[in-house]
Amino acid sequence: MYIRNAWYVAGWASEFDEQLKAVVVLEQPLVMYRIDENTVAALEDRCPHRLLPLSKGKRIGDDIQCGYHGMTFNCSGKCVRVPGQDNVPSSAYVQAFPVHQKNNIVFVWMGEPDKADTDLIFDMPEFQSDDWHVHQGDALHLNAHYLNVAENLVDPAHVSFVHPTTLGNAASENVPVHVDTQGEVLVAWRWIRDAEPVGFFQKFGGFNGNVDRWHYYYLHLPSIAVIDFGSADTHLNLDESDRNKGVRIFALHFLTPVNEHLTIDRWLHIRNTAVDDEAVSESMDAMFRVAFNEDKEILEAIDAQEQLPQKRKPIRLAIDKGPTVYRRRIRDLAEQETTEDLGEPLRPTFVHHE
Amino acid sequence: MYIRNAWYVAGWASEFDEQLKAVVVLEQPLVMYRIDENTVAALEDRCPHRLLPLSKGKRIGDDIQCGYHGMTFNCSGKCVRVPGQDNVPSSAYVQAFPVHQKNNIVFVWMGEPDKADTDLIFDMPEFQSDDWHVHQGDALHLNAHYLNVAENLVDPAHVSFVHPTTLGNAASENVPVHVDTQGEVLVAWRWIRDAEPVGFFQKFGGFNGNVDRWHYYYLHLPSIAVIDFGSADTHLNLDESDRNKGVRIFALHFLTPVNEHLTIDRWLHIRNTAVDDEAVSESMDAMFRVAFNEDKEILEAIDAQEQLPQKRKPIRLAIDKGPTVYRRRIRDLAEQETTEDLGEPLRPTFVHHE
Amino acid sequence: MYIRNAWYVAGWASEFDEQLKAVVVLEQPLVMYRIDENTVAALEDRCPHRLLPLSKGKRIGDDIQCGYHGMTFNCSGKCVRVPGQDNVPSSAYVQAFPVHQKNNIVFVWMGEPDKADTDLIFDMPEFQSDDWHVHQGDALHLNAHYLNVAENLVDPAHVSFVHPTTLGNAASENVPVHVDTQGEVLVAWRWIRDAEPVGFFQKFGGFNGNVDRWHYYYLHLPSIAVIDFGSADTHLNLDESDRNKGVRIFALHFLTPVNEHLTIDRWLHIRNTAVDDEAVSESMDAMFRVAFNEDKEILEAIDAQEQLPQKRKPIRLAIDKGPTVYRRRIRDLAEQETTEDLGEPLRPTFVHHE
Repeated sequence: MYIRNAWYVAGWASEFDEQLKAVVVLEQPLVMYRIDENTVAALEDRCPHRLLPLSKGKRIGDDIQCGYHGMTFNCSGKCVRVPGQDNVPSSAYVQAFPVHQKNNIVFVWMGEPDKADTDLIFDMPEFQSDDWHVHQGDALHLNAHYLNVAENLVDPAHVSFVHPTTLGNAASENVPVHVDTQGEVLVAWRWIRDAEPVGFFQKFGGFNGNVDRWHYYYLHLPSIAVIDFGSADTHLNLDESDRNKGVRIFALHFLTPVNEHLTIDRWLHIRNTAVDDEAVSESMDAMFRVAFNEDKEILEAIDAQEQLPQKRKPIRLAIDKGPTVYRRRIRDLAEQETTEDLGEPLRPTFVHHE
Repeated sequence: MYIRNAWYVAGWASEFDEQLKAVVVLEQPLVMYRIDENTVAALEDRCPHRLLPLSKGKRIGDDIQCGYHGMTFNCSGKCVRVPGQDNVPSSAYVQAFPVHQKNNIVFVWMGEPDKADTDLIFDMPEFQSDDWHVHQGDALHLNAHYLNVAENLVDPAHVSFVHPTTLGNAASENVPVHVDTQGEVLVAWRWIRDAEPVGFFQKFGGFNGNVDRWHYYYLHLPSIAVIDFGSADTHLNLDESDRNKGVRIFALHFLTPVNEHLTIDRWLHIRNTAVDDEAVSESMDAMFRVAFNEDKEILEAIDAQEQLPQKRKPIRLAIDKGPTVYRRRIRDLAEQETTEDLGEPLRPTFVHHE
Repeated sequence: MYIRNAWYVAGWASEFDEQLKAVVVLEQPLVMYRIDENTVAALEDRCPHRLLPLSKGKRIGDDIQCGYHGMTFNCSGKCVRVPGQDNVPSSAYVQAFPVHQKNNIVFVWMGEPDKADTDLIFDMPEFQSDDWHVHQGDALHLNAHYLNVAENLVDPAHVSFVHPTTLGNAASENVPVHVDTQGEVLVAWRWIRDAEPVGFFQKFGGFNGNVDRWHYYYLHLPSIAVIDFGSADTHLNLDESDRNKGVRIFALHFLTPVNEHLTIDRWLHIRNTAVDDEAVSESMDAMFRVAFNEDKEILEAIDAQEQLPQKRKPIRLAIDKGPTVYRRRIRDLAEQETTEDLGEPLRPTFVHHE
C-alpha cells in the first residue's frame, strides 16, 4: 500500500553527481544523475527495447545511452537516437519523474506528474535559521515495511522500553500520550515533568537536577517524521509553547519505501544548542545510531513475524492512538488514489513551533 | 503433517537458564526460560500487540516484559501489565505450553493442554541404573523433513551402505529385516551371526574373532528412536534375549520437527561398557558424528530432490517394512487429530530388554 | 520453453572421468561417468526407491550402487541388484540418455531416444584441418535464460556498445545487419569496410592501417552459435566469400540450458593465424573473457528485470531481425514438440565457408 502522489526523498544532494545512480522508490527502479548544482534527473531505469537498466549504460552529455544497443534518451525520457535506423518509434521512451532539490535533499515525485507541485515539499524554517544547526546523519536500511517504521515515529510510548539508555527512561512508562491532527500532519506528544534527564540530555544538556522533558512526534503523511524533543530545568516550569527556551532537538526521518520489506530511513538533526560545534554533531550521531539500531532490530523482527501465519488479530492499546490514526489516514489516501478521481495531492502543513 | 498431541524435546536441560531463549517446534515459535532447577516455562514467542517476539524482551522476575511497549506476561501467559492504561484487555495473553523436565531433557507438549500427561513422556530404566552410563551428544540440525529422518531410524538396511566404516559392513547387506509393533513402538531388527565386527566394535568391543551382532530399531511414535545395537563373541552363541551379556549400546535420537525442511536430532548414548570412562564417551561421540553426518548428507540430498518435480511414484522394497509401517501409523495419527473427537493421546510403551 | 529433441553439450570430454559427476540439462539432473575413452554414460540422477541422487552413490565397475540402500543400476539404467530381495521389480530402473563424444565435446540427447541420430550433432570441417587451430575456452555460467543468451549470439549490433575495447568500435554503430536462414541455421552478418581495426585485431592482426571487418553470426537451432569474425587490409578489397584470406576466427558457443535462470556457455575458438602458437591461444582467451563477461553482466541484469512486473511490451527495432527470427523458430519448434506427432528432429546444416 503505497501513496503515489507524494514527494519522497531519493537521497541527500551529496549522493548525486555526474555518475548514473540506480535508486528504487516504491518498487520503481530509477536511474538518477545530476544535471547541475540544483538539478537532478530521474528516469525509469529500464530500456524499453531489451529491458537493460539504463544505469548500466553511459552518460553522453545530459543523455543516457543504453549499454546494450545504444538507444539514447534525454533527461525528459525522450528517445533521441536508435542506432541502425533513422526513425524513432513512438513507443521508444522512458518515463521521467519530477525531481526537486531543497535543503540539500533530493525529492522525487512518484505520482501523476501534473500534480507534482514543489510547494508541497516538506520544509521547516529552522533549515534557514542561524539559531539552528542542521546536520545530516545516515541512510539507515531497515528490512521492514514503511508503515511499521512510520508508525514507530508517531509512537512516543516505545522510547521508555526500546531506548532506555538514550531517549527514554522508566519515568515515562505510564505517562499518557496525546494525539492531534493538523491538516496532513499527525502529532503525538507527551511531557514528563520533574524527572531525571534521559541519557541524551545527561550527555548534551548540562543539567544538574531534574528536568521537564517533552517528546512531540510530527508525522507528515505519508512518511516524513519530525521528532521534537528536549528538556529544560524543572525549576523553569517551562510552558508547553516555550520549548525554544530549553535544549531542543529536531530529529527528522525521511522514509523511502523501497519495497514491502525494505525501507530507507534518512535522518538528520537540527538543534538550538552547540550550533557551532561539529564535534557535538558527531557525538549526537553516535548516540542516535545506538537508538535507531534499537528500532531497526525491533522493526525487522516484527517484519519477520508478519510473514508467518497469523492466528489472531493484533490487539490495540491506549498508547496506540498515533499509529491507529496514521494507518487510518494512509488507508483513506490509498483508497482515494485508486478511485477514478484521484483527488487532491497532500497539502503541505509546516510545523508551527509556538 | 505433524502430530500435535505428543511430547517433543525442546532441548537438553543444560540449554535453558535464566535467559530468554527462542525455540521453534512444529513451526510454533516459543520463548523458553528456566524458572527453577526442575521447571522451564514455554510461551508463544509473539506479543499480541505488535507481534514482537517476547524473546527480544526482558525478564522481570518470572515474567517477561515485551521489548517494544512493555506489555508484561507471567509464565502462564497471562498479561499482568499494560503501560499507559489501568485495565488489561481480555485478548492480552499469550499461549502457554506445558513443559516437563525428565532425565536432564526438557520436553514440551504441543497439543491440547488438558491431555499433557507427564506419564506419557519417554523413559527407559537404564537412565537410572548404575550399570549403565548415559552420555548426551549433540543437537544435529538436518535440512530434512522429520518423517524422512525418523524413517531412517527404523531402517536397519541402510547401515551397510551409508555407514560402512562405523555401524555397518558388507556382511549385513542381504540379511532380512524383521518388523513388529509393540503398542506405540515399532521395532525393526536383524541379527548378523558370525561375522567380522563393524568399525564401532572393532574400536570399542575388544573382540579377537568373529561376533554375533544385532541392530534393534525402536521407534516411539511420533519421533523418538532407540537404537539398540551390540556384539558378542560368536562362541557365546548369544540368545536374542541375552543382549545385556554382550557389549550393548543404546543410541537415542530425539527428533524435533522445526518446520517441513528442518529437523533437530538430539542424540545421546547409554552403554554397559566402560561406564566409568569419560574418554570412551568422547571417542564414541566422534564415531557417531561420522555416522550421523553420513545420514545428514543423504537426508538433505533427498529433501532437495523431493522439492523438484516428480515424474513417478517412488518404489517400495522388501527392506522398507519398518518405514512403511511407520508412515501408515503417522498418517492414522494425523487423521485422528484432525477429526472432531481427537481421540486418546499416545500411550507410553517402554522398551523391554528381556 | 525447451527444445527436447536436440543434442546439448554436457561438457568438454576432459570434464568426464571414472568419477560420478552430477550434471543438469534442461532441468533434468543427470549422473554422468566415463566408460571408456570414447564413451560416457548419462543416467537420471535419482534412485527410484528413496530419490537419493545416484551421483551420491558408488561406482561398481560400470554400474552405480545407490548410496542409501545399495540398489544397483547398469549404464543403461537397468536395475541389476536389490539388496534384501531376490527379484527386481519392473519399476526399478532409471532413465538413460543417449550420449555421444565428438571433437572432444560430450553431447547428450534430451528428447525421444529413438530420434537420437548422431549424424545430427554439430560439426564443422575446421575441427579436423591442419590449417586451423582449435582451442577450448571456459564454461561460463550466466544467470540468464538461454533464449536471451542465444539471442545475443545472433545480434551483431550489440558489439559496438557492449564490447568497445575488444570486438566492436564506433565505426559499426549504424551499419545495417543482414539476416538469412540456411535450413536450421540462422545467419546475421555485416561488413564494416575501411575502418580502424577493433581491439582484437589491433592485438592479433598485425595491421598497419584501416581494415575491412566482418561479423557473421551463425545460430544453429536451438543453442549453438558460431561467430565468424575477422579482418583484412582494406587495400585487398576482400570479396565476402574470400574470408579465409584474412585473419579469421571462429568463436563457438555451446549453450546448455540448466534451468530458466541459468545457462552454461562453453566457448572455444578456431583460428587460421598463429596456429602453432599456444601463447596466442592464452592471450585470446584473456580478451574473450573480457568480452564475454561484458555480455554476462548485461544478460544477468536483463534476467533480473524480466522477473519484475512489466508495464508494457518491449519494443522491437530494425537491428532485431536475427533475434526476432530466432525466437519465432524456437516457438515453432516447441509447439511442434508438444503436438502429438513430434515431427522430425532438427536436420544438421553445416557452415559453408565459401
